Amino acid sequence: MNQIKPSPKIAVVGSGNVASHLFKALSKAGADVCIVNSRTLEGLPSSTDVALIAVKDMAIAEVAARLKGKAGTIAHTSGSTPMEVLKDSAPAYGVFYPMQTFTKGVELDYSDIPFFIEGSDTATADTLSRIAASISDSVVAADSERRRLLHLASVFACNFSNHLVAIADEILKGDGMDYRMLLPLLRQTVKKLETLSPAEAQTGPAARLDFKIMNRHIEMLQDRPVLREIYEDLSADIIRSRGENGAES
Amino acid sequence: MNQIKPSPKIAVVGSGNVASHLFKALSKAGADVCIVNSRTLEGLPSSTDVALIAVKDMAIAEVAARLKGKAGTIAHTSGSTPMEVLKDSAPAYGVFYPMQTFTKGVELDYSDIPFFIEGSDTATADTLSRIAASISDSVVAADSERRRLLHLASVFACNFSNHLVAIADEILKGDGMDYRMLLPLLRQTVKKLETLSPAEAQTGPAARLDFKIMNRHIEMLQDRPVLREIYEDLSADIIRSRGENGAES
Repeated sequence: MNQIKPSPKIAVVGSGNVASHLFKALSKAGADVCIVNSRTLEGLPSSTDVALIAVKDMAIAEVAARLKGKAGTIAHTSGSTPMEVLKDSAPAYGVFYPMQTFTKGVELDYSDIPFFIEGSDTATADTLSRIAASISDSVVAADSERRRLLHLASVFACNFSNHLVAIADEILKGDGMDYRMLLPLLRQTVKKLETLSPAEAQTGPAARLDFKIMNRHIEMLQDRPVLREIYEDLSADIIRSRGENGAES
Repeated sequence: MNQIKPSPKIAVVGSGNVASHLFKALSKAGADVCIVNSRTLEGLPSSTDVALIAVKDMAIAEVAARLKGKAGTIAHTSGSTPMEVLKDSAPAYGVFYPMQTFTKGVELDYSDIPFFIEGSDTATADTLSRIAASISDSVVAADSERRRLLHLASVFACNFSNHLVAIADEILKGDGMDYRMLLPLLRQTVKKLETLSPAEAQTGPAARLDFKIMNRHIEMLQDRPVLREIYEDLSADIIRSRGENGAES
């Protein structure tokens, strides 16, 4: 029924972090895979079954147009680009989005990184899912709307959390310390989330309705109106969700 | 000069998480240590050199009063209680504050947890520092003002980050997913901070001035005014610090 071969010939198109990590992970998993430059497409096998476009969001449409007629299936690897930008470039197209963040020089373990898959038809979704499943234990179907939600959620959970550490760093630097002292506590905070939901794991003055401490903190921030507002809003929202989760005792 | 013995007789006073973890860590390090109930003080050796009070903040003063005349040095283990609450209960007193968060059943590795120490005099600070150094590689002097800053910083970096994951969880639950999908990304976010400062590690739409995505996210939050304000404030603050750190390119 499914006309894609069990071991499709894959080309990773791009030269950045995502491209090189994907290529390494697929090679390691024994896939028939090559990596090609997105501008020249030099070395792209004429028999390519699946081309995975791993370039900056802005360049996806252009690279897809260049790939027209050169692969049976084309997929991009972006969390925030609709699948439809690919629709004129191949008979089958989709999204192959690994949710990750990179650090130069730090090896990524793909096995627990979730892949979010969308296909222009069921067979294409299946093919992309099977490729993802060869390198990750977590493969999830996700259309554009779901990817938008995932992206918004990851901005809150990861981008904004990182900035909260930057704020902590600023506070500590005023007294000759820095954020590194907080890393063990931060690691423990994330570790707790393996066994407790974030609502269950919540600690701190807002969670225990310690208004004395909250007021003292707000006083300490009196010269920092933005930080003060962030402190007040997040504390108020912790108190709100505490009520909704029935945590009063 | 220093009249405290090289191996002081230590009593951990309390029966909660902090008390039992401290007792275990000190025992493991070969200290001469016992653990006693904070209400009865049953089994407290009459020759106790250092009593470490590991009870809830509200109970510290009461337990200290009960210990009067029963230990050479008394210290509490709280990040947000002034040392002075102990001043009438022993000739020497101080603070022995391990910055940590607990999960029931999860063993703590104290070696990288920072201890913040204050003493009523230099010898007392030395004694408490030496005890801390027997179980941790990170022992730092911290008076009340410094502990206040540390607590405020940890509320931003840990308590508020945990709540951001709760917000992400709420967003994902609306589409049948949950925060667990974000854990690999979150672990990677913390891991990056081992090699990059939070300012250097910052990614996401605000960091790259992607106003198109930010506006779309704000639209998605139009029915959630508090989340929208949190999104706007944190994004604005990322853009501000980006400018201050000279990250424009």
